[in-house]
Amino acid sequence: MMHSLPFSTAELDALLDQSGADVLLASSKHNVQYLLGGYRYFFFEHSAAIGLGHYLPVLGYVKGREDLAFYVGGGDEGWGIEVFPIWPERVATVSWSAGESARVAAEYLKSAGLVAPRIALEFELWPVAAWEILRTEMPSATFIDATEILEELRSVKTEAELNNLRKAAAGIVDSMLATFHWVRPGVTETEIVQQLRMEQTLRGLEFDFALITTGPTFGRAPSHRKIANQEILSLDTGGHYRGYLADMARMAVLGEPTAIMNDLLDEVLSVQAAARTAIRPGTLGNDIYETALRALKSCSHQNDMHFVAHGIGLIAHEAPRLTATGPIPYANKHAQRPLEAGMVISIETHVKHPEVGFVKLEDTVAVTNSGWEAFGDWGRGWNVA
Amino acid sequence: MMHSLPFSTAELDALLDQSGADVLLASSKHNVQYLLGGYRYFFFEHSAAIGLGHYLPVLGYVKGREDLAFYVGGGDEGWGIEVFPIWPERVATVSWSAGESARVAAEYLKSAGLVAPRIALEFELWPVAAWEILRTEMPSATFIDATEILEELRSVKTEAELNNLRKAAAGIVDSMLATFHWVRPGVTETEIVQQLRMEQTLRGLEFDFALITTGPTFGRAPSHRKIANQEILSLDTGGHYRGYLADMARMAVLGEPTAIMNDLLDEVLSVQAAARTAIRPGTLGNDIYETALRALKSCSHQNDMHFVAHGIGLIAHEAPRLTATGPIPYANKHAQRPLEAGMVISIETHVKHPEVGFVKLEDTVAVTNSGWEAFGDWGRGWNVA
Repeated sequence: MMHSLPFSTAELDALLDQSGADVLLASSKHNVQYLLGGYRYFFFEHSAAIGLGHYLPVLGYVKGREDLAFYVGGGDEGWGIEVFPIWPERVATVSWSAGESARVAAEYLKSAGLVAPRIALEFELWPVAAWEILRTEMPSATFIDATEILEELRSVKTEAELNNLRKAAAGIVDSMLATFHWVRPGVTETEIVQQLRMEQTLRGLEFDFALITTGPTFGRAPSHRKIANQEILSLDTGGHYRGYLADMARMAVLGEPTAIMNDLLDEVLSVQAAARTAIRPGTLGNDIYETALRALKSCSHQNDMHFVAHGIGLIAHEAPRLTATGPIPYANKHAQRPLEAGMVISIETHVKHPEVGFVKLEDTVAVTNSGWEAFGDWGRGWNVA
Repeated sequence: MMHSLPFSTAELDALLDQSGADVLLASSKHNVQYLLGGYRYFFFEHSAAIGLGHYLPVLGYVKGREDLAFYVGGGDEGWGIEVFPIWPERVATVSWSAGESARVAAEYLKSAGLVAPRIALEFELWPVAAWEILRTEMPSATFIDATEILEELRSVKTEAELNNLRKAAAGIVDSMLATFHWVRPGVTETEIVQQLRMEQTLRGLEFDFALITTGPTFGRAPSHRKIANQEILSLDTGGHYRGYLADMARMAVLGEPTAIMNDLLDEVLSVQAAARTAIRPGTLGNDIYETALRALKSCSHQNDMHFVAHGIGLIAHEAPRLTATGPIPYANKHAQRPLEAGMVISIETHVKHPEVGFVKLEDTVAVTNSGWEAFGDWGRGWNVA
């Protein structure tokens, strides 16, 4: 029985061709989910280590031959596939280690008659144990990094993916606003993050992370610092809905915002608004930066402000990669590339003020045929806690 | 400033010596947490992928030279270390990829004058990108698998660790009992697991996984099946408290348990009780199996029953590894080894019945100086939902 595939095999085949690969072995949770149309094995969603082994799912795809595709899952993973059938004809749920997953994958490739395949692997996560077994089992195989192939395949989102991102954003913002409503003087940053985690869980999200500041501080880890009356609170938090990530930031103040607080957030809002004006199909990724940085240069606090834009989807930074500066390698690869409808961009501006603290907004903006749509686009002023 | 170390350097030095290693590079979240006395970087706790990179923390330790220890963290990880100071003198929070983490680790090793180190690495998770950089930067280095060295170091728990496991177990069992209280006819398995996730989060646990069955079924993934009156519900769930895992199972029935339900759970209880009688310092790991299997052989449902025992701590299966049969490699390595006070063992028995369903208990039992202590040792009969 053939299922319809959740991605374009023509596009994947072309990407493999351009990279000189004829086999793909995808293993990261997000790429396996993407290629299997939403499937993730719930049992190893949070922890990978068991005994001496590590869970390593392997989705194998041979260029132009979807009939040869296979999936290697964990022992007991039949439980997961029973409730979420997947499209590959060949499935082995037998592996209790990364090495064993590689051994089974090599058997599938050899049984397909491949003797010297050029294999695309995710080098940043494929483990040494699995690598050594592939090289022993298939001594004529050569290897290529699959990371950018898969990032490119995921870069334009489908309607179903956009809907997941829309729900993630709504849930994340609602969780922050509910947390602001709950905050009172004397609670610690750690307690605030625990409440935020509850609010996300209540809304069916999987909590990912929370960065927090209270009062005039800039360290963004949850600490035992207690928030006081008249102080501000910044939350910058991530959570997943069906694997899709929202990563957004909102502000609150315990009391009425002061004039300087209003000035700071207004300047952040002005940069965020300017960035959106550059978002539509066909403009270059870099246009977002240029437009936002022009607005930033007219802000009175420009020296303490910072703007960032980056693609978002199943992971926190993905195509289009636009970050003009900063430490992440190749982060601006797509600066000169036209935006396409279905790309989703995280837009962030913050300003640091020694007396007020850390003021930040982060929004999720999808490129649409006519321009843009912001997901979860509420609660962007001062929320009074 | 020297901090006191959270593990015995003498023991680690001896383990490295026996393995022929003179450097350890630990990178798994659980082993980094162990060696750093509880530290985990909150930002990458749930997701490792960012941009083209994967987060790879590296705790470097040179045998006999704790003064040369170092830690390579992610960019921005200074936020985490600010609120949880760590003991190594040398810390670099600069890396946005596994490859970059390896490059920085190699620099630290070279700056310590090591030219041909024998490096113990976790082969099941150290990625190809990081491996290739280590081999390029240190062409005379050789490599040894660190997994069992670190498992052995973690095998006997301290009082602080036991207390974390005790709290995890109490929270997990209370979460299951609260979920049983909430269940009503017509709710789905997926909804029950969502409620369980809420109950764990409310108690400060990090939800890990849940296996579930309702009625006379054996597939243990959460499905859309609705539970009906008079049916049973099995929950087998994991959650972490400060990184330490409880993995336990409890039973409920919607209505009064029938005679056969009571028979089945009584037989499971009898095997679980028998296993405990073998737990004390000095008995062999295998004695737990022999004692439990003797009890199992006297059960009327013995042909449909299964018993498992395995160490537990920061991960789900660790030393002592006792599993006599099954697919996990080397799972019974410690069968002939005497138990020690401070080891913690997960004890599991299930029985499958075609009309009743899947009946299971899983308990957490610590080896004490005088025998054993069961953590979260309540709710082990039929809980009436």
